[in-house]
Amino acid sequence: MEILERIKKVIVMFSFNGISVAFAESCTGGYICHMFTNISGASNVFERGIICYSNQSKIDLLNVDIKSIEQYGAVSEIVAKELAFNVRILSNVDIGIGITGIAGPTGGTPEKPVGLVFIAYSTEKDTQVDKHQFHVDRITFKKKVLEEILVFLENIEI
Amino acid sequence: MEILERIKKVIVMFSFNGISVAFAESCTGGYICHMFTNISGASNVFERGIICYSNQSKIDLLNVDIKSIEQYGAVSEIVAKELAFNVRILSNVDIGIGITGIAGPTGGTPEKPVGLVFIAYSTEKDTQVDKHQFHVDRITFKKKVLEEILVFLENIEI
Repeated sequence: MEILERIKKVIVMFSFNGISVAFAESCTGGYICHMFTNISGASNVFERGIICYSNQSKIDLLNVDIKSIEQYGAVSEIVAKELAFNVRILSNVDIGIGITGIAGPTGGTPEKPVGLVFIAYSTEKDTQVDKHQFHVDRITFKKKVLEEILVFLENIEI
Repeated sequence: MEILERIKKVIVMFSFNGISVAFAESCTGGYICHMFTNISGASNVFERGIICYSNQSKIDLLNVDIKSIEQYGAVSEIVAKELAFNVRILSNVDIGIGITGIAGPTGGTPEKPVGLVFIAYSTEKDTQVDKHQFHVDRITFKKKVLEEILVFLENIEI
């Protein structure tokens, strides 16, 4: 199914069930919010998005612990979890999603190569994080992350 | 010139001159941030973006005065100015841009029809706001706003 159709189905389902979502995007840079808001009626479901590109913005806007960034790096499981959990609490929504990774083509290291991304999903029940490695260009990278998020949202038990 | 090429030229110029930018997007829903972050090296220039889709997020994240929203509506010159000015100050950047409008196809009124958008630009020197009316679909609407912003950024005196 075409990706906008899939997003629309999620928005219709979530609208019907009164489920709200907020995103904290680092490496995807606004693509997830953009794609959701291409659907008319997104405002019933999508509350806000924070494009926390700099470390300072992660700290200022999402209360990410500076120690987590210093100790584990901005691209880490723990920072992804903090992004997802905190965007959910701060936005007062049902689902918070946090994304941090290295879109490339520069910025990679042997430990954290280009294409590495952590996606965290936070609900009242729990906060989980998935690690992926996408060997694609910068723009396709964003699409791959969106596809992962859609699989999560399509299968969440409401 | 292709739009990504134009964004790249702005990013190269701003990187060279040490100019930083932040966006507060309502009706464009992340598209502006997404397009800027499609360019590798955007992080030298783009500090953060706030997708303040709900009124609450405008108040929480951008200190928009609730009285401005109540008196003039979220889609108004004054709210656009508050978005641009406050995102600049809060992000500690050189240029803050705020966008509020009605992407449609629903949500319009005789006073504020679908396609109406206010784009505000804030620098240390001043904060100005432009009003536009785009008679296009929801996705083209976002592109029209980006084109306006690019014209501003391409012509700013640094």
